[in-house]
Amino acid sequence: MHTDPDYSVAYVVIDTDSGLKGFGLTFTLGKGTEIVVCAVEALAGLVVGKSLQEIVNDFRGFYRLLSSDSQMRWLGPEKGVIHFATAAVLNAVWDLWARAEGKPLWKLLVDMDPKQIVSCIDFRYITDALTEEEALAILVKAQEGKQQREDQMLKEGYPAYTTSCAWIGYSDQHLKQLCTDALKSGWTKFKVKVGADLEDDKRRCRIIRQMIGPNATLMIDANQRWDVAEAISWVTSLAEFKPLWIEEPTSPDDILGHAAISKALAPLGIGVATGEQCHNRVMFKQFLQASALQFVQIDSCRLGSVNENLAVLLMAHKFQVPVCPHAGGVGLCELVQHLILFDYVCVSGSLSNRMCEYVDHLHEHFTSPVVICDAHYMTPKDPGYSCEMLESSVQKHQYPEGDVWKVHMNK
Amino acid sequence: MHTDPDYSVAYVVIDTDSGLKGFGLTFTLGKGTEIVVCAVEALAGLVVGKSLQEIVNDFRGFYRLLSSDSQMRWLGPEKGVIHFATAAVLNAVWDLWARAEGKPLWKLLVDMDPKQIVSCIDFRYITDALTEEEALAILVKAQEGKQQREDQMLKEGYPAYTTSCAWIGYSDQHLKQLCTDALKSGWTKFKVKVGADLEDDKRRCRIIRQMIGPNATLMIDANQRWDVAEAISWVTSLAEFKPLWIEEPTSPDDILGHAAISKALAPLGIGVATGEQCHNRVMFKQFLQASALQFVQIDSCRLGSVNENLAVLLMAHKFQVPVCPHAGGVGLCELVQHLILFDYVCVSGSLSNRMCEYVDHLHEHFTSPVVICDAHYMTPKDPGYSCEMLESSVQKHQYPEGDVWKVHMNK
Repeated sequence: MHTDPDYSVAYVVIDTDSGLKGFGLTFTLGKGTEIVVCAVEALAGLVVGKSLQEIVNDFRGFYRLLSSDSQMRWLGPEKGVIHFATAAVLNAVWDLWARAEGKPLWKLLVDMDPKQIVSCIDFRYITDALTEEEALAILVKAQEGKQQREDQMLKEGYPAYTTSCAWIGYSDQHLKQLCTDALKSGWTKFKVKVGADLEDDKRRCRIIRQMIGPNATLMIDANQRWDVAEAISWVTSLAEFKPLWIEEPTSPDDILGHAAISKALAPLGIGVATGEQCHNRVMFKQFLQASALQFVQIDSCRLGSVNENLAVLLMAHKFQVPVCPHAGGVGLCELVQHLILFDYVCVSGSLSNRMCEYVDHLHEHFTSPVVICDAHYMTPKDPGYSCEMLESSVQKHQYPEGDVWKVHMNK
Repeated sequence: MHTDPDYSVAYVVIDTDSGLKGFGLTFTLGKGTEIVVCAVEALAGLVVGKSLQEIVNDFRGFYRLLSSDSQMRWLGPEKGVIHFATAAVLNAVWDLWARAEGKPLWKLLVDMDPKQIVSCIDFRYITDALTEEEALAILVKAQEGKQQREDQMLKEGYPAYTTSCAWIGYSDQHLKQLCTDALKSGWTKFKVKVGADLEDDKRRCRIIRQMIGPNATLMIDANQRWDVAEAISWVTSLAEFKPLWIEEPTSPDDILGHAAISKALAPLGIGVATGEQCHNRVMFKQFLQASALQFVQIDSCRLGSVNENLAVLLMAHKFQVPVCPHAGGVGLCELVQHLILFDYVCVSGSLSNRMCEYVDHLHEHFTSPVVICDAHYMTPKDPGYSCEMLESSVQKHQYPEGDVWKVHMNK
């Protein structure tokens, strides 16, 4: 479905009078990034001139100001381009806040009082699944053991899986080489892209399963290629390779379709994972209500930043569904590691069936890139939300003035 | 929720070598229109240089080209800003096609072979509810009596209801005056905006019901103000005024929420209507599958133009749910009248519980404005899709060069 991506970001820098800056971004696939930038500029008027304190003192109100502007909400509400822009702006605000506190974002969250956490969440349209009181109770309950879990994360990091080994089109030899290298580096959980050609899917799944052995974890990802009936029959044909989940079997909007697929695949021991294109908390609420997914894949840029992701983490906990974040692209690993650390320390308290996606590219553009060690995300220590880009990368890649683009345009 | 709209459009004009032009638009609430324009410009590259014949010979393929560009679909898919832009561009293509055939859009559709109609529809993600074969069978079956229904529409027009009488904040006297005038003009179906203040809602519903009598139709519209439980209790409090439907009781994304509301209100004889912010056919499919609405409100600009609306009309027919289009804003009445005429003549064959929204403003900007007579939409006769604007209106209102804006900016 995304055959020809040109990984990009809409990059937001918030300047303040004190000299402190906040950096935020949202990931895109290339064309259309200028549309998100245009939306960021439209939202800027709601941010510029406010103090950080004023914003975070009523973060729920500020979230609603951006997501429910009475004219711009028509363009969503809370979905698509306008919501990507909201995410980019709010990511920069959260980065600024964490820097102002001298903490990495996950630590800012972990140190927050449960009441302050819930005060960042807009509960509109989700109270039939999770009330503010229930959210608070979850957070208060999870205070127990919090310090041990934080210490554990600082020591061990958060478990990750790799998507880098088995893209569509890789030859046997290439697959085996990548898999061998990954196994040597300590990876035990592998995702295979499927859905273009069933025989080729079988070939690649067979090789990967043989390489990793019966006990390692294999997942498959169809990137929305199928209708409901086709998804069920195709995945059934791949059941022999014992995938833990089928990811994005159909349209990201199709809650009832995912529920039907979940029901059909449950007897085969295969779960359904989705979320990277799930556009807001109202959709996640229904996926959970309908038992339409067994793995919640949050995204740090499609949802309305930390604020909306907090709501989803808490709903997932209430429904007892594990969260396994989507990452990759540009900066998604850097961002989402903070959210899943918070989930473990302050919400779920569990690593069972949980892992964070990792794709090994484009980290070299960040001032505080992710650190992966023995297939774990090492807990970030630098203040902020880890999405500041190197000035040299910005200069080189900025559209249309960057050197990279000058070369393109002179062709 | 939309307290301060500044009704606007993103307006698309397609020029052709023959001199013939196509006009399309999508309606917006003001701020953010420039984002949609930016998205239209991004899509333009997929349209410019193609011939009309090339497009309409594979309209399904062209729809998918626009809606599933491998980079830009990340920004949707098929939702929000990028889908509004798709709608504006495709509306202009349909206008161009109808003009090239010398027919109003509804007549172009009515004269098309059922096979050609289904060839315009992208069935991806809806085959579990409606296959191409089922769609074709519906259209073939409805050929019976088609000519009589077309003649009837040319004579009588399509029944309408008015939303102009009972907006929030209107005084008793103002309500009574508007209602008296409307009754004199032949209106029998009235919609009342609710959800801000229960006592004020009761006041206005009571006046309207008294004025129109027990047999006229009253509907209420909450514009997404409530969570699920609040919607049920609020509407229950208004049941004494016998509304036919409650419109947009909660988030437009909340299929399961609408299903719960539908179930709770069914014993009171109140249906749920929604759709003006339902963002694509996959969502409508689920609303129908879940019995989450009893009235389908299509929108001519939020869905992917005629192509996607055809899919929704056919699904609604299969599920035996009446379609009552959303209109108002700028140009929505002009556009949607064509779709509902097609629905009656070629799909549903029924006027039972069906009516098209009408709001009496901003028609003066169009070269072929809607004509309302005795509370019916008079069937349009001019070639095209009725959304060409007067050159003088474009000049005056175009942002930021138009006179209207110069005055604003000099303030």
